[in-house]
Amino acid sequence: MFLKNCWYVAAWDHELLDGKMLPRTILEEAVLLYKSESGKVVALRDRCCHRGVPLHLGRREGDCVRCMYHGLKFDSSGKCIQIPGQDKVPEKFGVKSYPVVEKDHLVWIWMGDPDQADPALIVDFPYLRDPQWKGIPDYMHYDANWLLIVDNLSDFAHLAFVHTKTLGGSEEYAYVTKPVAVERLNDGFRVERWHMNAAPPPFHRKVLPAAEKDQPVDRRNIGRMFVPGIFFLESMFSPAGSGSEQGKREGSREYRNCQFMTPETRSTTHFFWTYLNNYEGEDHNISRSLHQSLIEGFLEDKHLIEAQQKVLDADPSFELQAVVADAALSHFRRTLAAQIAKEQSEQAATPVPIAVRKPHQVGLGA
Amino acid sequence: MFLKNCWYVAAWDHELLDGKMLPRTILEEAVLLYKSESGKVVALRDRCCHRGVPLHLGRREGDCVRCMYHGLKFDSSGKCIQIPGQDKVPEKFGVKSYPVVEKDHLVWIWMGDPDQADPALIVDFPYLRDPQWKGIPDYMHYDANWLLIVDNLSDFAHLAFVHTKTLGGSEEYAYVTKPVAVERLNDGFRVERWHMNAAPPPFHRKVLPAAEKDQPVDRRNIGRMFVPGIFFLESMFSPAGSGSEQGKREGSREYRNCQFMTPETRSTTHFFWTYLNNYEGEDHNISRSLHQSLIEGFLEDKHLIEAQQKVLDADPSFELQAVVADAALSHFRRTLAAQIAKEQSEQAATPVPIAVRKPHQVGLGA
Amino acid sequence: MFLKNCWYVAAWDHELLDGKMLPRTILEEAVLLYKSESGKVVALRDRCCHRGVPLHLGRREGDCVRCMYHGLKFDSSGKCIQIPGQDKVPEKFGVKSYPVVEKDHLVWIWMGDPDQADPALIVDFPYLRDPQWKGIPDYMHYDANWLLIVDNLSDFAHLAFVHTKTLGGSEEYAYVTKPVAVERLNDGFRVERWHMNAAPPPFHRKVLPAAEKDQPVDRRNIGRMFVPGIFFLESMFSPAGSGSEQGKREGSREYRNCQFMTPETRSTTHFFWTYLNNYEGEDHNISRSLHQSLIEGFLEDKHLIEAQQKVLDADPSFELQAVVADAALSHFRRTLAAQIAKEQSEQAATPVPIAVRKPHQVGLGA
Ligand code: FES
Ligand code: FES
Ligand code: FES
Repeated sequence: MFLKNCWYVAAWDHELLDGKMLPRTILEEAVLLYKSESGKVVALRDRCCHRGVPLHLGRREGDCVRCMYHGLKFDSSGKCIQIPGQDKVPEKFGVKSYPVVEKDHLVWIWMGDPDQADPALIVDFPYLRDPQWKGIPDYMHYDANWLLIVDNLSDFAHLAFVHTKTLGGSEEYAYVTKPVAVERLNDGFRVERWHMNAAPPPFHRKVLPAAEKDQPVDRRNIGRMFVPGIFFLESMFSPAGSGSEQGKREGSREYRNCQFMTPETRSTTHFFWTYLNNYEGEDHNISRSLHQSLIEGFLEDKHLIEAQQKVLDADPSFELQAVVADAALSHFRRTLAAQIAKEQSEQAATPVPIAVRKPHQVGLGA
Repeated sequence: MFLKNCWYVAAWDHELLDGKMLPRTILEEAVLLYKSESGKVVALRDRCCHRGVPLHLGRREGDCVRCMYHGLKFDSSGKCIQIPGQDKVPEKFGVKSYPVVEKDHLVWIWMGDPDQADPALIVDFPYLRDPQWKGIPDYMHYDANWLLIVDNLSDFAHLAFVHTKTLGGSEEYAYVTKPVAVERLNDGFRVERWHMNAAPPPFHRKVLPAAEKDQPVDRRNIGRMFVPGIFFLESMFSPAGSGSEQGKREGSREYRNCQFMTPETRSTTHFFWTYLNNYEGEDHNISRSLHQSLIEGFLEDKHLIEAQQKVLDADPSFELQAVVADAALSHFRRTLAAQIAKEQSEQAATPVPIAVRKPHQVGLGA
Repeated sequence: MFLKNCWYVAAWDHELLDGKMLPRTILEEAVLLYKSESGKVVALRDRCCHRGVPLHLGRREGDCVRCMYHGLKFDSSGKCIQIPGQDKVPEKFGVKSYPVVEKDHLVWIWMGDPDQADPALIVDFPYLRDPQWKGIPDYMHYDANWLLIVDNLSDFAHLAFVHTKTLGGSEEYAYVTKPVAVERLNDGFRVERWHMNAAPPPFHRKVLPAAEKDQPVDRRNIGRMFVPGIFFLESMFSPAGSGSEQGKREGSREYRNCQFMTPETRSTTHFFWTYLNNYEGEDHNISRSLHQSLIEGFLEDKHLIEAQQKVLDADPSFELQAVVADAALSHFRRTLAAQIAKEQSEQAATPVPIAVRKPHQVGLGA
């Protein structure tokens, strides 16, 4: 159901400031995230191996964490290193730990086989570390499967109807523009769409100087989606007719947007995002305005997508009908499904140990 | 579980005023109701055939409705007539539409086979269109299966205990009166009950002129229940001993009450009702008082019935014990069960097409 | 899943004052408790045999209760003795009644085979009826299986971590003390633990006279757990070095604590408790302070235990790892499991009658 051997965004780094013990469920596993005393981010299964109490209710001690029920202490690799009232700690005592990488203000986690966790596989979004690009990182929680958000981002046409008064600008966008190209890639897709000679959309108009507010623009959007659910968007607004489609950039204003969809459960999603501009300089009100506009737009999506999730939940036999604009969406789902199938067939080769119920477990699970 | 080939009340007509897009789940199907520009009530499956977004979040355009996610437009028959960004609309694109009849301020819907939807089958309650009869139509939502409400109406004895201080009047009603007749009919039942020479019950006493408040009355109730859950009640209060049981009507005051139980789900119900009187003339305070009294009484029922639903849910193996007064109730359930069984055996003869999972559906349904 | 042939605490007697109809679910059965006119506590299945309406919504009449839907009346043995509108009451009409014993302010109930309900089997806690011992009886509701609370009480080491600032006093308690003995008994276990020469724990310190607040104490705890979930605790605080471990009692202050865990459902629990002291005399502020301290401490437990329940619910395959301190806990679970298995094998020998669906039941249970 989930692709496990890949990197997911687990948090923004600012969420772990000041020793915060952050509980976060990822791919239906409860994870505890914290920054150790030595400054490394630690990710442990948020469940004491003794009697199951969540470790985030415990206490950080240096690089370690102590369960505050009976006091078992775990190091940053998840190994149990102390059991109060007991001299020896059995070798097998401990909780699962997850590979974690902190990079460009994002905390990435690998939920699958740790041996395959190669940091080089992390998708790079260089604008996050480029001081010229400014923006406000944020988080939103969705009551919907992450693929419904991926769907949403797969077709710019929805800008016309969902976001007419915020991010879109006009319904015309859906009728007079078409994707220049939908590139089907091994790890996702790339879509490019131009909208020539139109009024600037509301979110962009708001931050324009007065003189530009009523000038028509040529608008280019290039979207790039990566498995399992990572989206980069490059937007450019140029004066209408300035030749930006032939590579002329004069008078253009550009945006870089990244969105990371991390499944919390099969029906809920962590949504991390930021929207960067390269022209505000020291005028941080531009970031603030864009941040507000994007939230407004995302809430329009969220309203529809969460309703959609309920509809799909209510009748799993419902047969959707694909339109031409679903090309990217369908390719993405096919690609992801193939990767999950491959991963699961590999995993099926591994034997599973047989569980034996011990006295201290009697009565659990009803 | 539900009888599908019959008419259900879907709404009061005033619920659709001013272009309201009314989402209402009926027999566990999400339905969108709206009045088209040409004035006809339209009922469509409230689920866009593209990606499942509820159509009630869309926009009415003339007689049509547009899904405001990617802009598909549907006419009042449910046919998709526009897909933005695409020249041709495939023939099979569309959503289910339901036969609807607006009559006497009620909107009736047919959830089953449209070919069998004969308006002549709608149960007629002529008092709804007779200007002499006045009342305030209303709606209540129940967290209970509609048959528990049908049960409630099948035996007037509950008036004595549940509604002693509102609609009933005294516990005596349960002891000294018995149904004159319980007629078992093909499409439901008819019950008649007299209570002679008793104080007027509180709801009736409230609207009486001072001189009549303390005069004993002879009270007649005739209840008529129809499959699948439609109840008409004719009540008459006559001066005690005036001979109303022999057809004398002088000094009588009469009421006509209709109640429509439409299953929302197997455990929730839409309850439409009105309580009419034929004597208020221009004194609308009589309607208002009766309306308040009835709500008060219905809430007494609702409290018990919703508790009952929880009890029945908690233990499906619970074996109820029937009393003599359950004759009408038992007949009704037997009748309805037979009709449902017949309908389902007919339907079982129809072959079901095999669903194939397409790429754009991958990942849905977990 | 539950042991049925044993006594459970159903209520404190003060909960039934003034004719209160108390609904309380016990072992997943809805029970109605009330004190009859003749002063005996009655426990009936809280579900009318007619159409399932809860009897606690009815009315007490003398020793009897009347269902206020259609008026069936039941005596204190559960037998139906009146059906309004019907001359004869069929023999089999009635609801289940449960053996009940009121003793030392507790109402005990027997949920299993009534023939085995011997009051002599009730565990005796004589301090409840000894006027020298003072305290405030109370109740708390847990969203957790009762065995998780039993676990909690099986190891005093948790005092160190969970209750450091309330009932415990210091984390040292977990490291420098060990149980003197864990006695594995047929009906539970007994644990004794000493902690010598330490500061009085906060709850005790609060009620000490100023002169004693900073004097070190020798602390003895003796816990006794009984199947199915009854806990008695004897605590003694003596001046450090006064020889209390050799039986010298001079200057000691003692507490007697009882806790009764009654399963409401498999995942929720009724928790009855009181904490008694033998030295307050007429200074009831001591009871009040201890009562507050205990609530504070119990809430610390509740917070962890309810989180633990959620973790266990989320993954029934989770394999707990036992520590040395789990000896008492493991013994208790093994003992209880054996008793439940024995009970169920005896019950399996009894044939179950076959249920037939009657007309008045059609349509129930969806
Ligand atoms: S549950 Fe964590 S130490 Fe016991
Ligand atoms: S979901 Fe309705 S148009 Fe796409
Ligand atoms: S449900 Fe109790 S009398 Fe009918």
